[in-house]
Amino acid sequence: MSSLQHVNPTVKGIRESAHSGLQSLAAHVTQEIAQGMQKPFKGVIDISSGDPHKAGMKPISFVRQVLAVCLHPELLENKTLPLDVRLRAQRLLEVCDGGSVGSYTDSSGMPHVRQSIAEFIMRRDVGVHSHAKDVFISAGSQRGLMVILKLLASGEGDTQTGVLTPRPCPHTLPTLLDDAGVALVPYQLMEDRGWAVDLSELHRALKCDRGGCNPRAIYISNPGTPTGHVQDWKSIEEVIRFAAAERLLLLVDEVYQDSVYGQGKEFISFKRVLFEMGKEYSGTVQMVSLHSLSSACMGECGLRAGYMELVNMDPEVMHFVDTMLCTDISSPVTGQIALVLMVNPPRPGDPSYDTYTQEILLIQATLSQNAQRAHEFLNDLPGMSSQPAKGGIYLYPRLHLPSEIIEKAKKLEVEACVLYCQMLLKEEGVFLGAGCQNGETTGNHYLRLCILVPADTLEEVLARLASFHLRLMDTCPYPDRGVKGRDIRDTL
Amino acid sequence: MSSLQHVNPTVKGIRESAHSGLQSLAAHVTQEIAQGMQKPFKGVIDISSGDPHKAGMKPISFVRQVLAVCLHPELLENKTLPLDVRLRAQRLLEVCDGGSVGSYTDSSGMPHVRQSIAEFIMRRDVGVHSHAKDVFISAGSQRGLMVILKLLASGEGDTQTGVLTPRPCPHTLPTLLDDAGVALVPYQLMEDRGWAVDLSELHRALKCDRGGCNPRAIYISNPGTPTGHVQDWKSIEEVIRFAAAERLLLLVDEVYQDSVYGQGKEFISFKRVLFEMGKEYSGTVQMVSLHSLSSACMGECGLRAGYMELVNMDPEVMHFVDTMLCTDISSPVTGQIALVLMVNPPRPGDPSYDTYTQEILLIQATLSQNAQRAHEFLNDLPGMSSQPAKGGIYLYPRLHLPSEIIEKAKKLEVEACVLYCQMLLKEEGVFLGAGCQNGETTGNHYLRLCILVPADTLEEVLARLASFHLRLMDTCPYPDRGVKGRDIRDTL
Ligand SMILES: Cc1ncc(COP(=O)(O)O)c(C=O)c1O
Ligand SMILES: Cc1ncc(COP(=O)(O)O)c(C=O)c1O
Repeated sequence: MSSLQHVNPTVKGIRESAHSGLQSLAAHVTQEIAQGMQKPFKGVIDISSGDPHKAGMKPISFVRQVLAVCLHPELLENKTLPLDVRLRAQRLLEVCDGGSVGSYTDSSGMPHVRQSIAEFIMRRDVGVHSHAKDVFISAGSQRGLMVILKLLASGEGDTQTGVLTPRPCPHTLPTLLDDAGVALVPYQLMEDRGWAVDLSELHRALKCDRGGCNPRAIYISNPGTPTGHVQDWKSIEEVIRFAAAERLLLLVDEVYQDSVYGQGKEFISFKRVLFEMGKEYSGTVQMVSLHSLSSACMGECGLRAGYMELVNMDPEVMHFVDTMLCTDISSPVTGQIALVLMVNPPRPGDPSYDTYTQEILLIQATLSQNAQRAHEFLNDLPGMSSQPAKGGIYLYPRLHLPSEIIEKAKKLEVEACVLYCQMLLKEEGVFLGAGCQNGETTGNHYLRLCILVPADTLEEVLARLASFHLRLMDTCPYPDRGVKGRDIRDTL
Repeated sequence: MSSLQHVNPTVKGIRESAHSGLQSLAAHVTQEIAQGMQKPFKGVIDISSGDPHKAGMKPISFVRQVLAVCLHPELLENKTLPLDVRLRAQRLLEVCDGGSVGSYTDSSGMPHVRQSIAEFIMRRDVGVHSHAKDVFISAGSQRGLMVILKLLASGEGDTQTGVLTPRPCPHTLPTLLDDAGVALVPYQLMEDRGWAVDLSELHRALKCDRGGCNPRAIYISNPGTPTGHVQDWKSIEEVIRFAAAERLLLLVDEVYQDSVYGQGKEFISFKRVLFEMGKEYSGTVQMVSLHSLSSACMGECGLRAGYMELVNMDPEVMHFVDTMLCTDISSPVTGQIALVLMVNPPRPGDPSYDTYTQEILLIQATLSQNAQRAHEFLNDLPGMSSQPAKGGIYLYPRLHLPSEIIEKAKKLEVEACVLYCQMLLKEEGVFLGAGCQNGETTGNHYLRLCILVPADTLEEVLARLASFHLRLMDTCPYPDRGVKGRDIRDTL
């Protein structure tokens, strides 16, 4: 008998992420290599998650320089650092209590940071108003999302709060929903239309689950994680009308708003559309929009900062958001400062402008070229089909696995996509995400790969993946037919 | 009707912190000054919370220099930075994925950081073993505490988990307990014995509440926040025996372990005592010990990092701690790196050693002298009595308020200590904490002041406080008798 033997039943109900199993395996393989075991590959390449720096992408110099000065203000005198870097750091230190990044801030974030973000949103949304008081900063956008989910949570059984959730969804989301104690109500994205959101499917999902729980919100990821879909104006408008009619809170994850590269595509924020739909909508529909320092171009996942903008929220709700954030005391100041630099970068004429611009363009070009390259390459493999990504940092190709693999997975009591990832990891040292972690429950099999990596890393991944995949297909002579309509045996 | 109109009832139950009211008032007064309003003081001095840098204390140069290099690795070539700073930064970057502080880490923290902490604990506890796998890093120690409380939470009514909590307790604790959904079971600290923990009071508190809820843990703050009490070996042993007999989890907040200055006092960790009590205890008593980068000497509250060591915890519990931390993805890397520097500072012979040592000694001397100075000064004021602080960063003096003030507070429906703090803020621009925020429910009145501030700031605070306090006492001719046994009217 012990005092912590009985773990909170809600916590016990949090679903085991299949990801942690693969992570352990990856760590194990890495350790074997470190211990001198011979492998046909040099090391494990992990592109299962969106972690650009880990994958070898470079941070933005301006951001790092300003942070370095803020941490060690003697560098204010260092003439080798650009003048705008030092002026920025000075200004930012002035808005830190005691002139130090070591001081706590307001739980909702530093007023200066919230104000800078509100101004950024207004510029982005072509003048739609944004107020600092509606912007809440947290230690990563996922923490902010968690706070909202906690506020929504209530009831049990058929009164339990439910959240309409895309299938596939970000792999971090199911655990978050479980932990908050809300039910996941899946709506299927349309693979054959590039993973578009389908209105009739939203209605179906809602009707189907109205009996099982009490859906009070709809989660949208745009640009889509892990699908790479980018919503257009009409699609966003449809979702807003749906949310308005059904009185659902809109939870919009827009963390990859800086990475839309599909031809003719652009990022349009839900808020912008909402405010062009007239007072009937803009004055009533409740919305939370999330953005993050972990975005594609910054990639500063480790600094832990994100923000959410609350639209049309009751003052009481705002109050409780604040109260919940209070238990964290405050979010990391280095992250908060980097948020200001993200939303308010160097301007033309500033000493850092050219370098900054080149660095951003390089990241965007890498991402866009990788998306194209990986899509074409994977689509050409037998037994694999990929929708093109128009934005975001993932590809989510479908696997048409030989029945032997599916049988083998059944025997081993793992999902077939997980088995595939395990084998790939062991045989080629490539760590991809398994579709079942993205809430896949249709019986189809998918892989998730982050494409925001240096081009040569991507090539290495594709080569190893192809080598494994073709071997697998070769040893299993009776595969399913690929979607491209040709028998895989023909291509081998 | 709106989707987020009905806030989660548990969240609604989180008690309103009186602190936020005073914070708003402080912000208001500051704004008035900024707008040019004439006041008898230059600005608000806020020593209501433990936020050393905000109060003007300086960061440790070594920590900041290493962090600056980690953020902007070009500084590795900067010869004006000490060699050990650059070598440390290089080593730390090597253990960051992708060589960048911008990468996510394991949810429980970077292995290198956890290992450094385990080694520190072993040195501190004179050889008692500590294992990296038992050390969990979080975005501040309060976040770690929250995770444990969430695991403990269960039941409702008389099956609801309760936590024995000192009165007075840290002012951040009641909100945390509410948010986690556990009941606060108060045990009174002994003011006349310097706020010591009393064994018979623990028994009384437990018996008294066994019917009302299900107490499963005891929270201890040592050195005491806000009391300044430091537990000796015998007292710690008593608490451990009590926890063992009653099968309570020990939640030990040891964040101010680096700041014990009372004559003949030293910091002794609960873990060290536990492991000298023999296998019967060391093999069974479950314990969580918390430490933080927000500690006295580092004071790096804004970087947000803390850790907890779990002792004798079931593997299943460890697993769920990890799962809960997963929803944060990872804790801030700048903070994690600073934790390594805290537990593994420069050594004799290192270029940074002398500066580092001088800075630490200066902080400790300031703290110890301030504790003495403020205690004597406050104790000499009529209607105020203070126990000497032996450690930690607060004083918690008692107010013997004139009955007029108490009546006035009743009429205004605020606590008398809050009214006192409001008046002090408005009249003298000094922001102190009110005892009722520390869980005070005895009907006595207390103030909380952080004494980890530059000496001249403390003098300014004391002067303004005395001026207000004497004025208050003067205008209320019939005060209670002070504890020092003299009638306040005699001293005026
Ligand atoms: C959909 C989605 N949102 C947000 C994030 C970033 O989370 P955070 O801002 O907490 O780092 C990620 C990264 O994994 C993501 O995939
Ligand atoms: C008792 C106690 N523990 C811990 C902390 C520090 O919390 P954190 O480590 O989250 O900054 C404080 C500071 O306010 C405190 O008073």
